Amino acid sequence: MPRILAITGGVGGAKLALGLSRLLGPDEVAFAVNTGDDFEHLGLEICPDLDTLIYTLSGLANPDTGWGRRDETWGFLDTLDTLGGEAWFRLGDHDLALHVRRTEMLRDGATRTAAAAEIAGRLGIAHRLLPMSDDPVRTLVHTAGGPLAFQHYFVRDRCEPAVTGFEFRGADRARPNPAIVDWLEGADGVVICPSNPFVSVDPMLSIPGLRQALMDSPAPVVAVSPIVGGAALKGPAAKMMAELELPARADQVARHYGELLDGFVMDQQDADLAGGVAVETLVTQTVMRTLEDRVALAEAVLAFCDRLKR
Amino acid sequence: MPRILAITGGVGGAKLALGLSRLLGPDEVAFAVNTGDDFEHLGLEICPDLDTLIYTLSGLANPDTGWGRRDETWGFLDTLDTLGGEAWFRLGDHDLALHVRRTEMLRDGATRTAAAAEIAGRLGIAHRLLPMSDDPVRTLVHTAGGPLAFQHYFVRDRCEPAVTGFEFRGADRARPNPAIVDWLEGADGVVICPSNPFVSVDPMLSIPGLRQALMDSPAPVVAVSPIVGGAALKGPAAKMMAELELPARADQVARHYGELLDGFVMDQQDADLAGGVAVETLVTQTVMRTLEDRVALAEAVLAFCDRLKR
Repeated sequence: MPRILAITGGVGGAKLALGLSRLLGPDEVAFAVNTGDDFEHLGLEICPDLDTLIYTLSGLANPDTGWGRRDETWGFLDTLDTLGGEAWFRLGDHDLALHVRRTEMLRDGATRTAAAAEIAGRLGIAHRLLPMSDDPVRTLVHTAGGPLAFQHYFVRDRCEPAVTGFEFRGADRARPNPAIVDWLEGADGVVICPSNPFVSVDPMLSIPGLRQALMDSPAPVVAVSPIVGGAALKGPAAKMMAELELPARADQVARHYGELLDGFVMDQQDADLAGGVAVETLVTQTVMRTLEDRVALAEAVLAFCDRLKR
Repeated sequence: MPRILAITGGVGGAKLALGLSRLLGPDEVAFAVNTGDDFEHLGLEICPDLDTLIYTLSGLANPDTGWGRRDETWGFLDTLDTLGGEAWFRLGDHDLALHVRRTEMLRDGATRTAAAAEIAGRLGIAHRLLPMSDDPVRTLVHTAGGPLAFQHYFVRDRCEPAVTGFEFRGADRARPNPAIVDWLEGADGVVICPSNPFVSVDPMLSIPGLRQALMDSPAPVVAVSPIVGGAALKGPAAKMMAELELPARADQVARHYGELLDGFVMDQQDADLAGGVAVETLVTQTVMRTLEDRVALAEAVLAFCDRLKR
């Protein structure tokens, strides 16, 4: 029985996570999730990456957007707008219940981990969804116009401001989720899903105890490139790389993760870049359009991990 | 130009308030609203009586229930139930936006009065809606099984427990809304709408400064009986009277308000009880089924006030 830790952020990561969840049971794969873009909005504790994973694994995700729920209604948001409230963050009526319920549990003293487990269980998810930390870490996006809270950058300002750097406030003091550290002991592989390296994965790696646990683990660490053919399949990763004066190329993602990696997975479109990657590289079809694509990539990544472990 | 203060609680009171608002402009009638049944629920500040009035005056009220909005949807509540949250208080998707917006304004330091004015304005209401106090007052319903927060008694337990008494926690220390006290200076009449005397009007009267301001005002105070033909048209008023061993009769309502009253309005069905009322009494059609009924009763009550003033 394998024991895999999958590290995931938003929509792209959740696709591979879904594939992994179809192949491996709750005692075989656990998901470590970015909480750097969590924020308080309208008095609610909102955990976008965790919720994307919850909706994806429970089959409730909106297939068109990747985030939020399918068959959603918008009565709340429309009325909030009428009342002069902040309507830029798209909270659907059904989605809202999750945020209200989580906020209530957190106010009653539950950890983020416990609240996520309760909600996931109610939605029929048996796998462990582990927030990277129960302590607050907040991703700030530095721009020419000053720092922006992540959701302001990402949703409100539609990733338009040019990025000059990132800050993960609180990460230096944050304790890693002990359930992640436990899971890593005796793990057979760590899969960094195709999430944004800068704002989905780096928040986790910036928690000293979590990075150390990953370095200490004998399990091979494998990252799947979110950059394919010089572009991000979803989200601002390629735009960020350009603004940071990095070539928006898959091999740069491997370079970014550096010594953490034991293996790298890139798309067949980028086969010519494989020579520039310092670790063992699997070149395969990584673009996930269908459920079958997700499962096939998960299968390939697991086999790659297994090979690296020997 | 008359200057009327209307005191109102829930659904019955809001009907007459609507009639008054059709006859008198924003400089002619102001509404003092019970906040004793306000409560925090799911982290939201909910003001049921204020909201009933807001929805009634803005034309958004659900005509079948009297509370909540028409054309409401229930995605939030259904999902909350799935997630194990408390779904007994019926929060519709559109309605919810009002509570979220109010809660946000209160957390940002706005008074209940300012928050109500902002929300009412956004919904096109020009009249003043004045919470009885900006300080918290909480109605507790005493029952054989112990005290119940009002909404637990009223909504969750459907008024089933037998009532032994009432408590308005915080009323003794609450300052009356200064805008109500101001309005009373130079007022021409005070109309106590047909709301529940025990749980809609008494919370206001239990605020010492507010009761005193009503007593000090030269304006005649007129109450409209919510009891017609021995029954409450809406809500538990008659049931409460029976449990408190009071005859569930209109004349008992007048007795309950006692020296505060200068006039009393009762339904023609109860004409034979008029002799038992210690103040001048107007016997008229008080059952409000249509908008015309609401306006006609408002007209009769205003004429009665005017007569008493001379």
